[in-house]
Amino acid sequence: MNIGIIGCGYWGPNLVRNFNALEDARVVGVSDLRPERLEYISRLYPHISIISRDCNDILHNSGIDAVVIATPVSTHFTLGMEALENGKHILMEKPMTATTEQAEVLIETAERKNLTLMVDHTFIYTGAVRKIKELVASGELGDLYYFDSVRVNLGLFQSDVNVIWDLAPHDVSIMDHLLDQPPRMISATGVAHFGGGIENMAYISVLYDSGLIGHVHVNWLAPVKVRKTLICGSKKMIVYDDVEPSEKVKVYNKGVDYIKKREEAYDILIQYRTGDMLAPRLELIEALNLVAGEFYDSVNDGRRPLTDGAAGLRVVKILEAANNSLKQGGKVIKL
Amino acid sequence: MNIGIIGCGYWGPNLVRNFNALEDARVVGVSDLRPERLEYISRLYPHISIISRDCNDILHNSGIDAVVIATPVSTHFTLGMEALENGKHILMEKPMTATTEQAEVLIETAERKNLTLMVDHTFIYTGAVRKIKELVASGELGDLYYFDSVRVNLGLFQSDVNVIWDLAPHDVSIMDHLLDQPPRMISATGVAHFGGGIENMAYISVLYDSGLIGHVHVNWLAPVKVRKTLICGSKKMIVYDDVEPSEKVKVYNKGVDYIKKREEAYDILIQYRTGDMLAPRLELIEALNLVAGEFYDSVNDGRRPLTDGAAGLRVVKILEAANNSLKQGGKVIKL
Amino acid sequence: MNIGIIGCGYWGPNLVRNFNALEDARVVGVSDLRPERLEYISRLYPHISIISRDCNDILHNSGIDAVVIATPVSTHFTLGMEALENGKHILMEKPMTATTEQAEVLIETAERKNLTLMVDHTFIYTGAVRKIKELVASGELGDLYYFDSVRVNLGLFQSDVNVIWDLAPHDVSIMDHLLDQPPRMISATGVAHFGGGIENMAYISVLYDSGLIGHVHVNWLAPVKVRKTLICGSKKMIVYDDVEPSEKVKVYNKGVDYIKKREEAYDILIQYRTGDMLAPRLELIEALNLVAGEFYDSVNDGRRPLTDGAAGLRVVKILEAANNSLKQGGKVIKL
Amino acid sequence: MNIGIIGCGYWGPNLVRNFNALEDARVVGVSDLRPERLEYISRLYPHISIISRDCNDILHNSGIDAVVIATPVSTHFTLGMEALENGKHILMEKPMTATTEQAEVLIETAERKNLTLMVDHTFIYTGAVRKIKELVASGELGDLYYFDSVRVNLGLFQSDVNVIWDLAPHDVSIMDHLLDQPPRMISATGVAHFGGGIENMAYISVLYDSGLIGHVHVNWLAPVKVRKTLICGSKKMIVYDDVEPSEKVKVYNKGVDYIKKREEAYDILIQYRTGDMLAPRLELIEALNLVAGEFYDSVNDGRRPLTDGAAGLRVVKILEAANNSLKQGGKVIKL
Repeated sequence: MNIGIIGCGYWGPNLVRNFNALEDARVVGVSDLRPERLEYISRLYPHISIISRDCNDILHNSGIDAVVIATPVSTHFTLGMEALENGKHILMEKPMTATTEQAEVLIETAERKNLTLMVDHTFIYTGAVRKIKELVASGELGDLYYFDSVRVNLGLFQSDVNVIWDLAPHDVSIMDHLLDQPPRMISATGVAHFGGGIENMAYISVLYDSGLIGHVHVNWLAPVKVRKTLICGSKKMIVYDDVEPSEKVKVYNKGVDYIKKREEAYDILIQYRTGDMLAPRLELIEALNLVAGEFYDSVNDGRRPLTDGAAGLRVVKILEAANNSLKQGGKVIKL
Repeated sequence: MNIGIIGCGYWGPNLVRNFNALEDARVVGVSDLRPERLEYISRLYPHISIISRDCNDILHNSGIDAVVIATPVSTHFTLGMEALENGKHILMEKPMTATTEQAEVLIETAERKNLTLMVDHTFIYTGAVRKIKELVASGELGDLYYFDSVRVNLGLFQSDVNVIWDLAPHDVSIMDHLLDQPPRMISATGVAHFGGGIENMAYISVLYDSGLIGHVHVNWLAPVKVRKTLICGSKKMIVYDDVEPSEKVKVYNKGVDYIKKREEAYDILIQYRTGDMLAPRLELIEALNLVAGEFYDSVNDGRRPLTDGAAGLRVVKILEAANNSLKQGGKVIKL
Repeated sequence: MNIGIIGCGYWGPNLVRNFNALEDARVVGVSDLRPERLEYISRLYPHISIISRDCNDILHNSGIDAVVIATPVSTHFTLGMEALENGKHILMEKPMTATTEQAEVLIETAERKNLTLMVDHTFIYTGAVRKIKELVASGELGDLYYFDSVRVNLGLFQSDVNVIWDLAPHDVSIMDHLLDQPPRMISATGVAHFGGGIENMAYISVLYDSGLIGHVHVNWLAPVKVRKTLICGSKKMIVYDDVEPSEKVKVYNKGVDYIKKREEAYDILIQYRTGDMLAPRLELIEALNLVAGEFYDSVNDGRRPLTDGAAGLRVVKILEAANNSLKQGGKVIKL
Repeated sequence: MNIGIIGCGYWGPNLVRNFNALEDARVVGVSDLRPERLEYISRLYPHISIISRDCNDILHNSGIDAVVIATPVSTHFTLGMEALENGKHILMEKPMTATTEQAEVLIETAERKNLTLMVDHTFIYTGAVRKIKELVASGELGDLYYFDSVRVNLGLFQSDVNVIWDLAPHDVSIMDHLLDQPPRMISATGVAHFGGGIENMAYISVLYDSGLIGHVHVNWLAPVKVRKTLICGSKKMIVYDDVEPSEKVKVYNKGVDYIKKREEAYDILIQYRTGDMLAPRLELIEALNLVAGEFYDSVNDGRRPLTDGAAGLRVVKILEAANNSLKQGGKVIKL
């Protein structure tokens, strides 16, 4: 499989490296508007034959089977459509698109043309999230009560998108993957402390049916780096701390048992349960390595990838609703 | 000063001990509906002469100068009014009342009768919060950007009030004290996972003028105990971690400098600043000791206490609005 | 069982409280040289009939069945002998005596008089150490490789004994209990930074047969509080951190597998194993409560207590050897 | 300056990269016995002209001005001598040599031939150690009381040297650099748990004059990674935790004040001081970058480098004494 990569910023060299590591795939072209990024890549990977400022050298190259779109989100739709129209499978960086409508059109196009459309929700492929998914799916956590994620640090302020579009795709994609159900209502508040309408911090609340709630705090302006997620179920609870060098996932055999004493009233007996805490061994394979493998396999087998266009759409839908709520001062958006 | 205490639950013995520690005050009466609490107190403090199930033995005792009201919040207003009508100064546990209207009536009554009305916002008197207040007030933090507080653990589920009324008074009283300005808009989401309409977790967003934002996460159902507050200013940022045995307050000389390059557009240059981190020595005096002293002094000097009725009212106003928003599915409440 | 307590410093009120909590025992007498300590106790426990500066009021009181000796270690032997001679069972604070010879005489005397002699090695009764002992005894850790303990903070400098006799009894009693074998060689280094020959920091190395090694670092002069013990076995490894509020014991399913490739040479293949980490739920019963119960039961049943005179002697033997080594500049002492 | 590197294991590519980053130096040759290492380097740095299995291609190449010796320690002396004899300046990996005698001969040879001999004690050049040195040298810590370093994890077992020669050079070089005085006595204990006489854990005690003590715990067989150093002075104390991603150095304004009350007796009054804790901002320049610069500058300016042969010798002397003590069961070695 010959792969072309459009957009080669921070994530670009990682994409090249991991696709090159696949046995039957190789990166044959890279394009970027910035000459210095192209130079950097050609120095690192002198064997890549197409190094171009013009993305059409990738999009219209008949020798290229699949395209990775790793440009700013505002260009995702146009580039994705162009790639699909040229018969290329696509792997899109997160967030998939800037609007749900764009995502829907892309999905429909890929289906019509029988091409693979995958979104690089990298975190889904980490050892930590795969282990948590396993615990949730097996029922070991019981019914899910909430998902609470904090992703803050003194970070790279973006000038084109706010913190919701920049950081929240990580948390929202994990939340969507683990909870596996459609949200009902979304609200968000946030502030652009430095003007320009680019919010640098935001809080997103997501209500699901049956009392399940999600919450995400994303922030470019915090003194310490926090990447902490609580996932609480009726049987067990998880703390997932991505800053920890080891023991990123801790499973607490803790909870509350309640007995409704009488039907007519709120008259329940709460009992606390505490047990062992387990930090399961996590697989250490680089997540992007699995992303590349999943893309290759789903193209090859003609099957739907784990993080397909529908997953990308679901994430964009939440981001879009959160952003709309934010712009309307926290108004609750029904989905 | 002869002091009577109405309500003697978990906090009661601490109140007795700290008022007894004052040189010119002593606790002469304690009432509680539960005989076992009264027995416990009379064993610990055999010298207390009035130990009664009837709060009127405190309220109508002419030998008592001041009354501490440490009962469930639903009774605060009635007991407070009765105490004031009987000419007694009052120290009320937090939250001051169940409604803003009640708080206003109490304040008006105390003023009319020229009696001291103080609220036991204990955290305001901790070494940590006093140090932070000092840093904020001196301008060392610069302009304030946000206040973010998380107070979660596997906690004592209450059966009469939800988690907002139970835990958030701590955070909201600290936030009110530090930010020192009236909020403009409030919204809150939360869930009652065990029915009965008693929410066991909630997120509160508070918007102020000039881009300042407050956020509080309170939760009775979390696997780990977190008591962490971020206070971010334009010059410095603070992490206040109350779970830490020492170094509870860390002041980061970190931030973002931005230069607006052109007037017409969002075209700013962001520069990151990082410097030393300082964990200032904190005074170790028990907060409740200072609360008792402040109450005694303000009665004695006829002056307004630091956490007066107005402070109590401001906190109740935020809790009430948050609760209203919560009950309306996160609707934004304008103040 | 009527109990008398000689010596009522920091630990005294805890002893009274925990012995009073037993159903069939009660503290009837307390003696201490310091009037203020006696006053404090009589205020806390007005029912105690004998409150005296003269320990003979305890030792020669025929109504007293058992005596707790909680005085400075230099007086342990004389008081213990006097108690035994007067037919009383004794519970001795750690370290049991100032010399091994004294410990041996006490053991011999108790046996001759058929009286119970127990040593208050409190840590042995904590939920943490009991869980670790269970793991070691069940073979889950495999063969033991080492025991490494650090107990440092900015602590209470003693004026009568050095840091080895003050802090190391904790670590050495745990080490003795877990390793369950006699040491072969001991060496120690340390320094008295403030003169007077009272070392305020020390390192103790203890060599056992079969490559097992113990090491203890005790220090009154450290900026942070550390109470951390590593116990490493061929199958699993434990980190026991007593400063942690929860999850004090972490069991790592980690290790090294080695295969001797050839007999004649050091030609081995090392393979690393990593697996889950488990923090087992620990029982939360106060250790001293179990100490009191064990003392009562062993007296009542005429059986040997878990931490008997022999355990006390083994600990004193290690402390004495370590102290001797220290005074000789680290000379290795063979046992 | 043309540089040749002999030995290209884990550290090799870092050496190449950092020397290439200097403006007026470049790596022109690399040798290693392992073809796969040479291949790896030539792929990374295709411009390096000499890539050879034979170190003589470096040592006897007249175009090479300086040689970095990054081979196993057993070969350091022979290679270093050969390089000096061929008129080349040398930078030697730590530990400098396998014996003090070898180190002395190298120093003498370099001096005689007027060539630079530097040792790569990398840690000395880290932002953390440079900041600590600054604090010690300025007198801010007061008189030094002790240096205590722990460097343990489940690590790479070596087959040619024990843990003292493998890990302790880091701690001993830092200790030597900070304390800046010759040790008086050394003892060490340790165990080879897997036979072959290659100890996998060791404790080293180093006594200096005037009550200063150093202690190092190195261990390849520990469940968690610890890299923690305490440096205690009469005025302030430092905790240097190299595992922390930020705030590696914490300076505690804590200590003990003592007043000798009478001359004749140990009758002192201890008073505890606690103040702020400061985590100073550390420079983030890669240490090896500064090592390369220091080597280049000292060759160019004909001046003695910061970590010269004498520093290397002092470290080897301590390691050798510790190893001798270890092999004699902890016997105290006088220096």
